[in-house]
Formats: sequence, structure tokens, C-alpha cells
Amino acid sequence: MQLKSRTIYLLPSLLSEDSDAFFTTAYFQSFYATINTYICENEKVARHFFKKIGTPIPQEELNLIQLPKHNDNYSGIRNFLTDNLQNSIGLLSDAGLPCIADPGNKVVQLAHKLDIKVVPVAGPCSMTMALMASGFNGQNFAFNGYLPIKELEKKKAILLLQDRLIKENQTQIFIETPYRNQALFESFLKYLKPNVNLSISANLMGQTEFTISKSIIDWKNENFVIEKIPCVFVIGNR
Amino acid sequence: MQLKSRTIYLLPSLLSEDSDAFFTTAYFQSFYATINTYICENEKVARHFFKKIGTPIPQEELNLIQLPKHNDNYSGIRNFLTDNLQNSIGLLSDAGLPCIADPGNKVVQLAHKLDIKVVPVAGPCSMTMALMASGFNGQNFAFNGYLPIKELEKKKAILLLQDRLIKENQTQIFIETPYRNQALFESFLKYLKPNVNLSISANLMGQTEFTISKSIIDWKNENFVIEKIPCVFVIGNR
Repeated sequence: MQLKSRTIYLLPSLLSEDSDAFFTTAYFQSFYATINTYICENEKVARHFFKKIGTPIPQEELNLIQLPKHNDNYSGIRNFLTDNLQNSIGLLSDAGLPCIADPGNKVVQLAHKLDIKVVPVAGPCSMTMALMASGFNGQNFAFNGYLPIKELEKKKAILLLQDRLIKENQTQIFIETPYRNQALFESFLKYLKPNVNLSISANLMGQTEFTISKSIIDWKNENFVIEKIPCVFVIGNR
Repeated sequence: MQLKSRTIYLLPSLLSEDSDAFFTTAYFQSFYATINTYICENEKVARHFFKKIGTPIPQEELNLIQLPKHNDNYSGIRNFLTDNLQNSIGLLSDAGLPCIADPGNKVVQLAHKLDIKVVPVAGPCSMTMALMASGFNGQNFAFNGYLPIKELEKKKAILLLQDRLIKENQTQIFIETPYRNQALFESFLKYLKPNVNLSISANLMGQTEFTISKSIIDWKNENFVIEKIPCVFVIGNR
């Protein structure tokens, strides 16, 4: 593939530590072995990724800038973009696809404003993988990110989204930080109707990955405990 | 990668005719050069795909079954699954990921019921790629498939989804059949507020791919005409 200047490539990263085989291919090497200018979520994580997938570019030749912690301070990123118009630039988040349940979209906005071509590159996305594996409706779905932590607000959000599932057949996708998996799971069992279906995908692209998809009533009939592992939760109709 | 029996792999397919480099890699060959038992959306399209990516399995050794045209007739698929429990089975749609804006989810439901392990495989998904490239919020988004064709119903749907964008900052994603692209585009210009943003991604992974992301008022200021090419439409906030 011939990479272009004045172009930002939105590049995928590891989904699990076991998923490097996906990236050590000619296709991805055509990006990672060519681009040396990156905007990344976290420099350490990016350097670990490049090491793991065996990029031939020496680490000291990589020109990396981290995303700012706060959304209101993108002047450094703007300068980095304008300073590197003659290069192909990569945008990289810590895991999976940038801009999807991950930072990066402010960079893409800047690129459009600066008339830099934006090219998304296909790669692992845990939300769409969990949706595929759920068996639920994939013609209409919403990703809701994290639900509120406070019980009453969480209950309200779950009931609203269950309502959209029932009325619109819109499959609902959620993520949670691993140490709150069990609490979210228990809230689903408590608040969702018995005939609603819940699918849990865990450790996607990892050696121990699994997807279990069943009705709330069936989930209640076993004492399932979710470990503190990366999970995607999907509720839907069958 | 060691593929397993009693397992169905949800496999990606070409997004554009130019995207075969993505699949002619060791990673994907570990699936396509090993699995000879497939459930596919369309047998001709599947065979074209295997030929294009150079699968070493001779075409006559591929055991393919097509999805039924109607949702109520999955007994053939059920028999195919139970007859092939000793094999790794692939599920393949005509383009991109199965089950996402594409058929396949009924097969996944059957697999869960028959206690067949379901493994989603990462690959090109035009909706998430268009979302990344839009620069809009990727923490909360909905994919709405096709909008109604009749003008009044289409208007109602657009206004409802604009409302969700404004109230919930939920980015809205749509697809359309290529020959209706221009009509949908004109409806967006007509019904969306001037400060709402519309991003159009066309021919993703193709030689001529582009993403243009700007406000409705800016779109109105030029006489843009969309060709009859595969497009994803995204409306969102900046």
C-alpha cells in the first residue's frame, strides 16, 4: 500500500496481549513499518505495542506525541499536525480502534479542519465483535459506553435502554471497568425483564475468550460470577 | 492459530474489491486456509472471495450452505451445524462483518442453543470505520440501518434521531443503497439543523475512498453530489 502525505491513518491497536498475530502481517506492516509519526493515547503503551508487533523502525526514530489529558488544550496537537503535513501520521489509542469508546475524535476534527485526509483502518473493535457473537439484531444497535455508577441512576438508564430494545428492537451494548463487571451484571439480572437476553463477551481475541448469550431467566438459574476481566455486555432480542 | 471443533468463527469478508490485501495475510489464512465448512450469505459471492484471497483449499472441497431467504426456515442450517460439530465452521456474509447490518445472527443464536462455541473475528466494518473518520463522539452512538423511504416517515425518523443527538450526544450512523444516496443526503440537508454535522464516508478501503465531515450549513454552501457508491452517513456533534 502506498501511504500518502497530508494524511492521518486511524490505526487499530492490540485488543488483548494475545492478539499480536493480527498485526504482524504484511497488511499492517505496510502502515506500522512506514509511519514514524504518531499521535497516541499513551506513549508507553504505544511503544510497547510497536515492540510487540516488531516494527522495524527503531524506537528512537519514532516521533510520538500524547493526547492531552484535557479536551481544551489541543494547541500542541494542532502544531504537531501542521508541522508534519509532509508525513503520513498515525493515530493510535491504547486498545482497539481510536475514537471508538476511546479518545482521538478531537484529533480527527482538527485534521478535517486542516484539510488533512482522514483514512480509517480496519481492526479489532470489541463492541462490534461482541455484537456479532451475541446473536442479537445487528441492523439497529446502540453503544452506550459506561452506565452511571449510582444505583438509582443506573437503574433508570437500564430501564430506558430496555425500553428502546423492546420498542425499537435496538440492541444495546455496554462496557464496564473490570472491577465493576459483577455489579453491572447483578444490576442487569435485577432490573431487566426475564425474557430479555444478555450476552457477555470476555477477553476477546485472548486465549481464554468466551461469549455466553442467554435470557435473564436462564442467567438467574446459575450462579455465574464474572471475573475482573475485559467484558462487553449486550442486551437484545432473539 | 489452533482452530477448534464445535466452534463457529464469525469471519469478515471484502469491504471493497480493492481490500483483498487485508485478507491475504498469515492471520486470516489461518482461518481461510483451514476451514472448509461455511455458512454463507451467498455461495457465488463466497466463492469469489475465496478465489480473490487465494485460499489453498480447492473450491470443490469447500462445503458451503447458503442462508435461507426467510427467517422461519432455519432447519437446514440447524442440520448443517449438527452434522458438522466435529469441524470448525465459518460464517461469512457478502461484505464486511456477518451479523452487523448483514444477516447471520439467526445462525449465531442456533450455535448458542446447540452449545457450539462462538468466536467473532476482527475485520472491516464500514460503520465503525465511518464513525472513527467522522470525528464525532464515539463514546455513545447508534447504528440505525436504513431510514424509511417515504418522505414523511423519513423526516420523522431524522428528527427523532437528531433529537437523540442533541439531547444525549449520541452520534447517529446510517447506510443507504447507493442509488438512493443523493435523496438521503438532500433529506439531511433539508431536515437537520444548520449547526448539526454530517460526515460522509464513501468507498471505504477502496482506491477512491474519502470521508468529508462538516456542518449542514457548510454542506449547503456547495453543490455536492454523491455518486451511486457505497456510503456511510454519520451525524454528530463537534
